[in-house]
Amino acid sequence: MISLPPQAVIREVGLRDGLQSIQTVLPTALKCEWVSAAFAAGQREIEVGSFVPARLLPQLADTAEVLAHAQTLPGLKASVLVPNLKGAERAIECGAHLMILPLSASHAHSLANLRKTPDEVVDEMRRIRAERDAAGSQTLIEGGVGTAFGCTLQGEVKPTEVLRLLAALLDAGADRVSLADTVGYADPASVSRLFEQALRLAGDRFCCGHFHDTRGLALANVFAALQTGVTRFDASLAGIGGCPHAPGASGNAATEDLAFMLQAAGVATGVDLPQLLALRQRVVNWLPGEQTHGVLWRAGLPQNL
Amino acid sequence: MISLPPQAVIREVGLRDGLQSIQTVLPTALKCEWVSAAFAAGQREIEVGSFVPARLLPQLADTAEVLAHAQTLPGLKASVLVPNLKGAERAIECGAHLMILPLSASHAHSLANLRKTPDEVVDEMRRIRAERDAAGSQTLIEGGVGTAFGCTLQGEVKPTEVLRLLAALLDAGADRVSLADTVGYADPASVSRLFEQALRLAGDRFCCGHFHDTRGLALANVFAALQTGVTRFDASLAGIGGCPHAPGASGNAATEDLAFMLQAAGVATGVDLPQLLALRQRVVNWLPGEQTHGVLWRAGLPQNL
Repeated sequence: MISLPPQAVIREVGLRDGLQSIQTVLPTALKCEWVSAAFAAGQREIEVGSFVPARLLPQLADTAEVLAHAQTLPGLKASVLVPNLKGAERAIECGAHLMILPLSASHAHSLANLRKTPDEVVDEMRRIRAERDAAGSQTLIEGGVGTAFGCTLQGEVKPTEVLRLLAALLDAGADRVSLADTVGYADPASVSRLFEQALRLAGDRFCCGHFHDTRGLALANVFAALQTGVTRFDASLAGIGGCPHAPGASGNAATEDLAFMLQAAGVATGVDLPQLLALRQRVVNWLPGEQTHGVLWRAGLPQNL
Repeated sequence: MISLPPQAVIREVGLRDGLQSIQTVLPTALKCEWVSAAFAAGQREIEVGSFVPARLLPQLADTAEVLAHAQTLPGLKASVLVPNLKGAERAIECGAHLMILPLSASHAHSLANLRKTPDEVVDEMRRIRAERDAAGSQTLIEGGVGTAFGCTLQGEVKPTEVLRLLAALLDAGADRVSLADTVGYADPASVSRLFEQALRLAGDRFCCGHFHDTRGLALANVFAALQTGVTRFDASLAGIGGCPHAPGASGNAATEDLAFMLQAAGVATGVDLPQLLALRQRVVNWLPGEQTHGVLWRAGLPQNL
């Protein structure tokens, strides 16, 4: 018999991974409305944006304002993505609960996306940790290893290399680490194997799985990961998102479909599904012409849930 | 660690469950082309239609012709759905490899769909078995228990009732039985529990899982079922299908997405994925204006498969 944890956390990444991948620049007021409504629907972890130069990602130029709004909501853990020390300094200044430094296990993807080798990103982690400690800051640091199951540019990514980089990030001072299937190359069997190994390596410092639905397997991959004992998953409302280096990508796991799967399977998420579906509809209305995803919204909730 | 079987069979049901749910009446020649191309792509089990009165399902009025064509392909196991003894008589006459008698575990759905109670369908199974044996026919008989995880009309369907009906069908002479989540109420945990119990009850006479993607969980449900040891799954190319009593339903598991998941996870299906994706595109072109599903086609296969 399978064994599932009694509860799990869905970390909303639509405001970061979702909005950075689409053309529409969502006004700050609507982003704040999204954050508030997600909070009201029971979400307690939200990645609100990214501290990157505004010329690179104008969609996320207001991250500090959205973060400040999120920090007014009691108990909400607001995180930001930081590509480097400079971004980390802003996250520390703003008092983010958590900052996530992405690292691509694929050498080719790392150079294309961050213009650094994976090991240069590990060095950046060391500098970020020193900066955080020197500032006496409480901001947690997560190292997020992406393209962990393969890469559109490089093809294969070896699990041993992924595990080496997880260990290197922890050694360099990350409080915790996570794994991302940035381009939809994971399958439930590879997830099960790699997550088991990551847990053996990092214990409860291995904190999150991030799956894209590029090839339809996001929820099956979450289910496989859940069976290894991991209890935090990134997801994006209406499945918005993608990757500039994964053409045709179908976005992140849809928050509402994931929340439905977990709750139907008896894994509590704290999320109110009708409220979440209503918010999905509002967000979709804010993004006319953008590709949205997910399946549950079409049929709605079953009578028996 | 999870354990998966080395191989599994995808039974194509697009020509039956798919085509019966849409408006387009696909010409017989195109259905035969579909069967041939699916066979060429490695599919070896295809449900080609249903022996129901043509006035009820004009889309499937040519089932005998499609079956006759399928029987010319060496090694292809062609099955048909039969709603009653009358349909079974035609399946026997035509020498189908397998006939599937559907039974709804939901009393309400059974009356709406078949105008019989579940136990009246069990009685029909007894008559079908007697007829098959009297005819000296080799046609196998499968009892397919639908709405096995809940029902839009009745809400809850008790697992004990589902298991009782599986046993009753076997007692009445079914060679084998299967379970269907007709309306998308299953989740991976409920699938795991019910499939374990069905296997304990019926052993290898429990032969197949049929999942709809109404709420996005079809592949996760297959993955859960696969872990119990079941190795046959129904699916429909481009995910076409639905249920007249499940408004907004998003169709069956998409054959191409399911084949990708299985093969990526190391479970051999014998299916050639590029050929299957090419066939999907042809079938979609044959069905202009119809809702099609599936995710893989958008991004295509990863480089590393």
